[in-house]
Amino acid sequence: MQPGATQEQIKDVEERILHFGFEIHPIYGVERTVIAAVGAPELDRSEAKEQLESLNYVESVTLVLKPYKFVSRKFRDRTVIPLGDVEIGGDTCVIMAGPCTVESEQQILEAAQAVKAAGAHILRGGAYKPSTSPYSFHGMGIKGLELLATARDATGLKVITEVMDPRNVEQVCEFADILQIGTRNMQNYDLLREVGRAKKPVMLKRGMWAQYEEWLQAAEYIWIGGNEQIILCERGVRTFETYTRNTLDLNAVPAIKELSHLPIMIDPSHGTGRASLVPSMCKAALAAGADGLMVEVHPNPAKAIKDGAQSLTQAAFHQLVDELKVLADALGRTI
Amino acid sequence: MQPGATQEQIKDVEERILHFGFEIHPIYGVERTVIAAVGAPELDRSEAKEQLESLNYVESVTLVLKPYKFVSRKFRDRTVIPLGDVEIGGDTCVIMAGPCTVESEQQILEAAQAVKAAGAHILRGGAYKPSTSPYSFHGMGIKGLELLATARDATGLKVITEVMDPRNVEQVCEFADILQIGTRNMQNYDLLREVGRAKKPVMLKRGMWAQYEEWLQAAEYIWIGGNEQIILCERGVRTFETYTRNTLDLNAVPAIKELSHLPIMIDPSHGTGRASLVPSMCKAALAAGADGLMVEVHPNPAKAIKDGAQSLTQAAFHQLVDELKVLADALGRTI
Amino acid sequence: MQPGATQEQIKDVEERILHFGFEIHPIYGVERTVIAAVGAPELDRSEAKEQLESLNYVESVTLVLKPYKFVSRKFRDRTVIPLGDVEIGGDTCVIMAGPCTVESEQQILEAAQAVKAAGAHILRGGAYKPSTSPYSFHGMGIKGLELLATARDATGLKVITEVMDPRNVEQVCEFADILQIGTRNMQNYDLLREVGRAKKPVMLKRGMWAQYEEWLQAAEYIWIGGNEQIILCERGVRTFETYTRNTLDLNAVPAIKELSHLPIMIDPSHGTGRASLVPSMCKAALAAGADGLMVEVHPNPAKAIKDGAQSLTQAAFHQLVDELKVLADALGRTI
Amino acid sequence: MQPGATQEQIKDVEERILHFGFEIHPIYGVERTVIAAVGAPELDRSEAKEQLESLNYVESVTLVLKPYKFVSRKFRDRTVIPLGDVEIGGDTCVIMAGPCTVESEQQILEAAQAVKAAGAHILRGGAYKPSTSPYSFHGMGIKGLELLATARDATGLKVITEVMDPRNVEQVCEFADILQIGTRNMQNYDLLREVGRAKKPVMLKRGMWAQYEEWLQAAEYIWIGGNEQIILCERGVRTFETYTRNTLDLNAVPAIKELSHLPIMIDPSHGTGRASLVPSMCKAALAAGADGLMVEVHPNPAKAIKDGAQSLTQAAFHQLVDELKVLADALGRTI
Repeated sequence: MQPGATQEQIKDVEERILHFGFEIHPIYGVERTVIAAVGAPELDRSEAKEQLESLNYVESVTLVLKPYKFVSRKFRDRTVIPLGDVEIGGDTCVIMAGPCTVESEQQILEAAQAVKAAGAHILRGGAYKPSTSPYSFHGMGIKGLELLATARDATGLKVITEVMDPRNVEQVCEFADILQIGTRNMQNYDLLREVGRAKKPVMLKRGMWAQYEEWLQAAEYIWIGGNEQIILCERGVRTFETYTRNTLDLNAVPAIKELSHLPIMIDPSHGTGRASLVPSMCKAALAAGADGLMVEVHPNPAKAIKDGAQSLTQAAFHQLVDELKVLADALGRTI
Repeated sequence: MQPGATQEQIKDVEERILHFGFEIHPIYGVERTVIAAVGAPELDRSEAKEQLESLNYVESVTLVLKPYKFVSRKFRDRTVIPLGDVEIGGDTCVIMAGPCTVESEQQILEAAQAVKAAGAHILRGGAYKPSTSPYSFHGMGIKGLELLATARDATGLKVITEVMDPRNVEQVCEFADILQIGTRNMQNYDLLREVGRAKKPVMLKRGMWAQYEEWLQAAEYIWIGGNEQIILCERGVRTFETYTRNTLDLNAVPAIKELSHLPIMIDPSHGTGRASLVPSMCKAALAAGADGLMVEVHPNPAKAIKDGAQSLTQAAFHQLVDELKVLADALGRTI
Repeated sequence: MQPGATQEQIKDVEERILHFGFEIHPIYGVERTVIAAVGAPELDRSEAKEQLESLNYVESVTLVLKPYKFVSRKFRDRTVIPLGDVEIGGDTCVIMAGPCTVESEQQILEAAQAVKAAGAHILRGGAYKPSTSPYSFHGMGIKGLELLATARDATGLKVITEVMDPRNVEQVCEFADILQIGTRNMQNYDLLREVGRAKKPVMLKRGMWAQYEEWLQAAEYIWIGGNEQIILCERGVRTFETYTRNTLDLNAVPAIKELSHLPIMIDPSHGTGRASLVPSMCKAALAAGADGLMVEVHPNPAKAIKDGAQSLTQAAFHQLVDELKVLADALGRTI
Repeated sequence: MQPGATQEQIKDVEERILHFGFEIHPIYGVERTVIAAVGAPELDRSEAKEQLESLNYVESVTLVLKPYKFVSRKFRDRTVIPLGDVEIGGDTCVIMAGPCTVESEQQILEAAQAVKAAGAHILRGGAYKPSTSPYSFHGMGIKGLELLATARDATGLKVITEVMDPRNVEQVCEFADILQIGTRNMQNYDLLREVGRAKKPVMLKRGMWAQYEEWLQAAEYIWIGGNEQIILCERGVRTFETYTRNTLDLNAVPAIKELSHLPIMIDPSHGTGRASLVPSMCKAALAAGADGLMVEVHPNPAKAIKDGAQSLTQAAFHQLVDELKVLADALGRTI
């Protein structure tokens, strides 16, 4: 309560809290009164907080419990998602690699074979592409999905691709092994609900503006929609630094491991926007304990339709995976 | 070019630029070579930039032209959107007011009558509500839309409400006079394309992470989809300050006026998250030249389901509008 | 406490809290225990917070009281600082104007006469200049101070200038009427202590990274050093937006008025970095309730040694002040 | 130039550029004129940029060269700073460890012996402490410096400690082996000049708001002051994330290695503010290629006067160094 709150005002707040279903424990100090509230486990506490804070005789309201439940570390210790021969969230650091965008059959097949040969587990490639500019290429759509499936058949790699529109979820599920929710859609709730009904694992990228807590709440949307196969992916946040395209936040790895049981991947290609920084940040992510890496690799970055500046060549990727294997070994993990 | 780039590398870059359709104007300095490129007006230059930057002998690529065209100030000086008796973008500072969420017939009718009496032009109210927590109230949906229409009929106010799902655009158009795209959906491109096909004005809120340039590119999506009735709305961005819920960026008002011909509204309720700051920021927005204000008003903020802490009481709103009228007069505008 | 904390751990925390001098009020819930602590008014609570949070059986520690006292709104309602004919913090919106840097006698005299004629109250001008680049001009030093004094004598305007080095405080006090602490030095504690001993008012600019709370704590340093004549000045913070040099945060005006009794000025020249945005933001600041404005004005911005891009011409400044007078009148204030 | 600039305006800009000492290379396009300028190597280009941008017929000015010279990677490939048996910037990842603050002879001796036994090379400990709150402990001052020297004599560890006031530089040099400039003082130019005259290596922490370019310009101040023994240290920047005290930006490691020849350290204790995240981020920093680590270690974190929540226990630190040694080995480096 504000200092100087009257008996009546204190009583009003106490009644409101009881009405929400809490028990109250008031502490009457010399300068001010603090009213602790416990119980009411099923309530959305943020709503109670907002209502109480709107009273001008309430100084502040502090929530003690986390605003998510099923994706919390308190609910479960660790989630491992099996996917054919691979396990996401296990001892192996899973590597997803491939071009930003599916451009042609030749390009995606060449990329798939190269990343497979280098040691990647999963092929990435965009069929539906979010682009800041309306004049950019927006992906090949259904044709791109078919080419991804072709590349999967040719290499045995599993396939991850982005879904942007709730109306396309079913279609993308026919072709992809993992659905990706991009950074711009982290709080696209109708899309989250739709992938919550899907039978495929979902990789949820962090919004470039999102706090860990908001990211985990977005994951909770998918969970309570019925889909517990959720993978988180950090891909850089917005800061004042302009040398990198985003600021890749590796603190997210140990922080999310403290807060949640879900696996966490790192995408240094989008996180930094510069191919020259990607190898160092891949090693750093592995050493920090990331469950996997997502790396853009293109047969010819200088001809890539999108994101060439952040794509590794196939040779550079192969060398990187070799170096990561040595590092994984020292960390008691595998690639 | 990097210092020390070879003749061959310079030639390679020149050929790539010509291939994109530009003319080249190389400048061979002592320390380094700069290659200026002009022409190629229809190209998405950001793609050319990315491809060239992926070459390790290119130091940097600078774009001179803006990445949007139709929403630019160079395309048109000023857009005025007529809406019944009101004009958005004209001399009148348009006031949109109402509760965050439609909660009941009585609540929305009472709010509508109160904001009308105070002098508001447009009623706001959410039927589909984005909520960070999956456990929060997500709005009354179609029932909420019907109640907004009831309130419109009862008061003559125009109605604005948010649409989140591309599958609902048609339905929302049946009830609303203006479609609102919320901050989380500023880069939900399938939704932007869908409202680009609608026959109703669209208010596009700034993404809480978005630069002005990205915001205008999102508007350009709607424009080239076929809908030129676009209103921008600043509602606060993410910073390190925690006292306010967001940092309302009033610089956006004169900045957007320099860059674009579209009207710009200000939403200090979400922008600050604190009812006590709303009146001052409304006055500031009007003085900065905003085309309108969006204000949360609730018959009883302390009982509001959502956003009570940032909602004005009806009495406070009435007094605010009275003060704004005096200010508008001094600025040669009207409310 | 963490859920599952043992009796022993709870007892340990209780003892630590008592040892700090607090009374304890434990609340034993089903899921977890909360220990409320009241009293110990003289303690630096942030240190108690840090120590308790380092215990792995403590989940979190929340402070209820503000970490500053004398500059708080609870200590006093409003501070007015008299300065010759002017009062800072009173009904008049005080205008400080002048060039970024003192460049020559002719320049500063011409600028001083022009801003005086337009209606400014105080002359600004840098003698010691912080510059990001070591190769930039760093000001005329003592010669610049002398020229400011000459301009004061010629016009009757009071003079404000920046002090950067604790060793120069005494010298600057000989020439200036107000000492300015720049954004980069907001947490330069030895400098704050030194101006705390000065007999001249101090204008403390907000650090471009600083939360309101940190800013007020910096002001508290000056206060407890013995100098109660403190003026705050918002000048833009760091965000991801690059169109403006900084993001001027006008929310600071009503927010600081809620939290503190100190006057608050706005500097839109540094806050936006663009002369074209300055007039709109000056009007907005006045309408938000700012106690004053600080504006860069230069006889010839295109020849200014520093900050030409954000300086108004003398004619533009004159017109701006005329418009501000009309606005002030409508707001019941004066210029 | 702006589209539509007149011949006269173009000529004016050309003359200004020639006056600065550049050669000009104008490109007259259909829509607009671009004027390239080369030469004038000694000029502070940011001043030329600002002056030209203040002209309303100039659309934008782009700088191609970096605003620093001696600390640039183009000036030198790699700097190694020898310090007794240790080399900073060489193959060994140097470990600086110790308490935030020197509290007593017993505390600093115990900490020094423990970090030495674990394998640290350098002892850290604050004698002059910057504190956000004026009511916090500000360090033991000269007595703290003497105790650091005692700990050095007892263990053979080199000593690093912060200097905040230009008036104390000489004194701190008598006791310390490395001078630390804290984050709040990164742009305290008088202090930078003073340590530029010192004969001891300087570790320059990144300002929590500073871009890489600004950080390197601050280092350039020290260099041109005469001191080339400069070490950079990333310690977290300000973002919207609140779970961590700051956002430790590991991208700085490969980015700074691209831009500069100076060694770069990482401080995960301040960077995250949470002891539980420190070990993971130390491993990540090493894998990213950091030249060293700075870690807070306290004999009893729960009794630490400052920063207990981010300090490791001695046992945890010992285990961490053991794990880092295995990792360093796999990376071809040593600890």
